[in-house]
Amino acid sequence: MSAPDARVEQALGHVFASRALLAQALTHSSFSSSHNERLELLGDAVLDCAATDLLFRRFPDTPEGLLSRLRASLVKEDTLAEIAAGIALGDALRLSAGEQKTGGRGRPALLANALEALIGAVFLEAGYDAARAVVARLLESRLVALNPERDARDPKTALQEWLHAQAKQPPRYEIVSTTGPAHAPVFRAACVIDTLGLRTEGEGRSRRHAEQAAAACALEQLQGAA
Amino acid sequence: MSAPDARVEQALGHVFASRALLAQALTHSSFSSSHNERLELLGDAVLDCAATDLLFRRFPDTPEGLLSRLRASLVKEDTLAEIAAGIALGDALRLSAGEQKTGGRGRPALLANALEALIGAVFLEAGYDAARAVVARLLESRLVALNPERDARDPKTALQEWLHAQAKQPPRYEIVSTTGPAHAPVFRAACVIDTLGLRTEGEGRSRRHAEQAAAACALEQLQGAA
Repeated sequence: MSAPDARVEQALGHVFASRALLAQALTHSSFSSSHNERLELLGDAVLDCAATDLLFRRFPDTPEGLLSRLRASLVKEDTLAEIAAGIALGDALRLSAGEQKTGGRGRPALLANALEALIGAVFLEAGYDAARAVVARLLESRLVALNPERDARDPKTALQEWLHAQAKQPPRYEIVSTTGPAHAPVFRAACVIDTLGLRTEGEGRSRRHAEQAAAACALEQLQGAA
Repeated sequence: MSAPDARVEQALGHVFASRALLAQALTHSSFSSSHNERLELLGDAVLDCAATDLLFRRFPDTPEGLLSRLRASLVKEDTLAEIAAGIALGDALRLSAGEQKTGGRGRPALLANALEALIGAVFLEAGYDAARAVVARLLESRLVALNPERDARDPKTALQEWLHAQAKQPPRYEIVSTTGPAHAPVFRAACVIDTLGLRTEGEGRSRRHAEQAAAACALEQLQGAA
């Protein structure tokens, strides 16, 4: 057992019964055809599920839109890459010489993917509850720091601020359609950010609610992709 | 216990210990403030995880990109609404009179959301394995009908065909950047569908691979949203 592998296992709180599975989770596609991409797909879904599960129970009164934004902040690539760097996952990665030369061990996407693959591998070997325990351990300090009330600013304001911080153009809003009976109309609004080529839509019982829903969707996509 | 509720439970293969939880999963936000939207968020993540889990084990040799497309076809709103209609979920929904008048019991989004909320409720009450069993039962006929080899057409061709079938403009591709050393360049391509305001990106070790990755991402977004 290599020292970097053992350190990763210690950080996860899970010792792999199958060393081959651990090795596969740590293997980038540049290194071998037995690489971690399928495990990453699985781990990504397990991570989403476990993060939702943890947030759902921790914040029993927080509405779904805000829960979804809190989740996006926990599982986005930046956050996962930071966590991976914090447990020295880069040292344990199996990469081609070319990838190593170009800084692969420190590349955020590569670190985030390997972390997801590890979560997928734990799930495969030990089941959902074991994978959730690993996710809870990895996310713990960030979960404790979440404050839904502080983060409950309305999505239009949050989006505006986020774009401003990134020195991007503010969004514009359009009402796409109004349906439903006169006493209970349903508005559908689009949030358009031309410079990013992004257009999202949302529905609500007022123009404002529809725009907020469209803004929340834009925010989720941007923060999820950030 | 109402007859529609009992029929839904029979179709899921799960009898709820908590009748209040079942009722909440079936309650639209127009009917009561104790509605199903948080359960839907949870159930959506559980469904994604269970569907990935089922596909991962059923198709041990299928690459992640194709698995991801197979999953998108299983969990998209259209499919969920069809499944919900097949188990007469509309009859069990708790909706406002206004929603009922405007055809809420048959509205695909509403049916798909309630089905996800039910999956979330099973997960909450009985755990991941029970929720996965429900998902396996609901998706069974569709899982059996999947054929990764037939669906393995390259993503650019699949995207072109999908857009053609929807009478939409074909996509265009742009190379966004080329990075990495000369002996191992990494291409980043964008797939742009102007009429849909959609732009996705992908990376690969050749222009063609980068374009395929961008097309796969576009396909996933379109089929996920369809």
